[in-house]
Amino acid sequence: MPEVHAFRRDELRALLAKTGADAALVTRLVNVRYLTGFTGSNGALLVTADAAVLATDGRYITQSELQAPDVERTIVPAVATGLAERAAKNGVERLAFESHDVTVDLAEALATAGPSLTKLGRAVETLRAVKDDEEVTLLREACAVADRAFARLLPSLRAGRTEKEVGRELEALMLEEGGDGPSFETIVASGPNSAVPHHRPTDRVLQHGEFVKLDFGSLYQGYHSDMTRTVALEPVADWQRDVYALVADAQAAGRAALAVGAVCGDVDKAARDVIVAAGHGADYTHSLGHGVGLEIHEAPTLRAGATDTLADRTPVTVEPGVYLAGRGGVRIEDTLVVRADAEPELLTTTTKDLIVL
Amino acid sequence: MPEVHAFRRDELRALLAKTGADAALVTRLVNVRYLTGFTGSNGALLVTADAAVLATDGRYITQSELQAPDVERTIVPAVATGLAERAAKNGVERLAFESHDVTVDLAEALATAGPSLTKLGRAVETLRAVKDDEEVTLLREACAVADRAFARLLPSLRAGRTEKEVGRELEALMLEEGGDGPSFETIVASGPNSAVPHHRPTDRVLQHGEFVKLDFGSLYQGYHSDMTRTVALEPVADWQRDVYALVADAQAAGRAALAVGAVCGDVDKAARDVIVAAGHGADYTHSLGHGVGLEIHEAPTLRAGATDTLADRTPVTVEPGVYLAGRGGVRIEDTLVVRADAEPELLTTTTKDLIVL
Repeated sequence: MPEVHAFRRDELRALLAKTGADAALVTRLVNVRYLTGFTGSNGALLVTADAAVLATDGRYITQSELQAPDVERTIVPAVATGLAERAAKNGVERLAFESHDVTVDLAEALATAGPSLTKLGRAVETLRAVKDDEEVTLLREACAVADRAFARLLPSLRAGRTEKEVGRELEALMLEEGGDGPSFETIVASGPNSAVPHHRPTDRVLQHGEFVKLDFGSLYQGYHSDMTRTVALEPVADWQRDVYALVADAQAAGRAALAVGAVCGDVDKAARDVIVAAGHGADYTHSLGHGVGLEIHEAPTLRAGATDTLADRTPVTVEPGVYLAGRGGVRIEDTLVVRADAEPELLTTTTKDLIVL
Repeated sequence: MPEVHAFRRDELRALLAKTGADAALVTRLVNVRYLTGFTGSNGALLVTADAAVLATDGRYITQSELQAPDVERTIVPAVATGLAERAAKNGVERLAFESHDVTVDLAEALATAGPSLTKLGRAVETLRAVKDDEEVTLLREACAVADRAFARLLPSLRAGRTEKEVGRELEALMLEEGGDGPSFETIVASGPNSAVPHHRPTDRVLQHGEFVKLDFGSLYQGYHSDMTRTVALEPVADWQRDVYALVADAQAAGRAALAVGAVCGDVDKAARDVIVAAGHGADYTHSLGHGVGLEIHEAPTLRAGATDTLADRTPVTVEPGVYLAGRGGVRIEDTLVVRADAEPELLTTTTKDLIVL
């Protein structure tokens, strides 16, 4: 879909005009991919008013031709400095670079290459927050892969298995369902471990009467899904039902606050207020959610105090949690796409009723 | 193994003394892990003459206590600037930082935090090139996982399956064999695709009479294995046997050149000369190999012209290839540990005889 990439580069040019620079050097690989389609592990992109040049190394000659046919390509081992030299030769005087990505060492090399440097900021990340239809389609499938794998996992999710065994089975099922790999390190957290927000699967054996919190996702053609479900192994105690209901209420409040124009901090607050009102504010130690796409965490962030607003076609996660140290915790997470013309689209469709196994 | 990490920090202090700085700020996560054992996704380490402070955020309070019990820990959302402020308060005047990792934006924040900045260089990466016994044990198991998975894959490696199917099965088998996930994107390249050095698995169907090149590895407790084998689906043509034999000879020459004190460029040359002498120098487009450990590619690099030398207990890959565009290619890759007191230890023990299926 070269026209998609050309469109995105034009959007970048519009942002570039505001920086006073006459060209942009894009070095973050995920941003290079977004603007060209190129997925190699070494590449940089020079965007001028009327041209785009992709630099990569000899390993990717064929791949760059296939993936990015509509840009000029150049093969240089040092991709960023090669493009800075090229920019200088072509009369670029002021080159905008990604100062959140370029290291001090690389910036020194760029400075000796020619043009004066200025900051591009997170221009490409800002563009990436809003997805086009093709991107939403890929995210939808990434989420569907995770949903299908989770449904197949449930029959074997039982006391006696270890967190690691469950995590590996879930990852294998996502592959079988057409995913390209886990989109981040799968979390399987049982019993007291479920009170640790980010827990790596261990050899701990799942026990009756415990929560099992699973936070996982699949890659699909570069796009990341993200979902958390917390299940209970019977018997279920009253405190477990109470905590689960509280988190489910907060999560519903967060989802209900999603809308075009909604302030990100307000969305966070909508869910957080529910948990605070129940006296568990101190047990909810993280933000409500984040954008998701070519990266598992990307703009925007749904966190306390964030003043940016949600735009049409912005996918975000909504994932409040309550964690009771030593006892257990619950997190419920969906990925949804904010829509101007409709309710937010729910991409992770697994039930949020408490699953008791 | 806290004493291991304390020993590594002392090694860093010895290198630090040469920079004229009175403290080091380590920001590369893999280096933080190497020096502390901490595996979280956000962390930085301040090493002074007589102390070490690990900074991370609230998600990792428990994990950092468990993994890094022998260093002081501090919880700050902005880990690097937090430690730079801490250093300034504690009287550090000259702070060495990892300029190959720190971005321009972060360096600006560090500069306002207090101490004057100087470059640490790749001091920790240099230490990491030489492994201790525990690290070699983990690498050995990572390679054994890949060997066992490959042996189990062979019966189902046949014409009619797609590259993606084969890649996914291989990754699933590595998980079943005890691995923690693929150590990089698995390469399964059939027929003409085998002539592409770095090829992503596609829906292409494997055909009789073709090469299938598989480059893969497993993570095991943070350590990466790396192995390539090229098999043939019968019938095998004479040109295929010739290319295979040539690459195998070159690979053997590369392995034979491994020794403590050997110049990295000379090891590359030992293998390359074999391929050049056969008239295929232009069909071998990459370096011979690289160090491997907590990263899939790390120091040293076995490439033309490299002047550094190999030390005892340094694991490296040896992976020459010959790629005939449009026809097919062969790469054979092992991981070996250079030893002072013995022959290099071969960690990837799968046969290098041509496997015909």
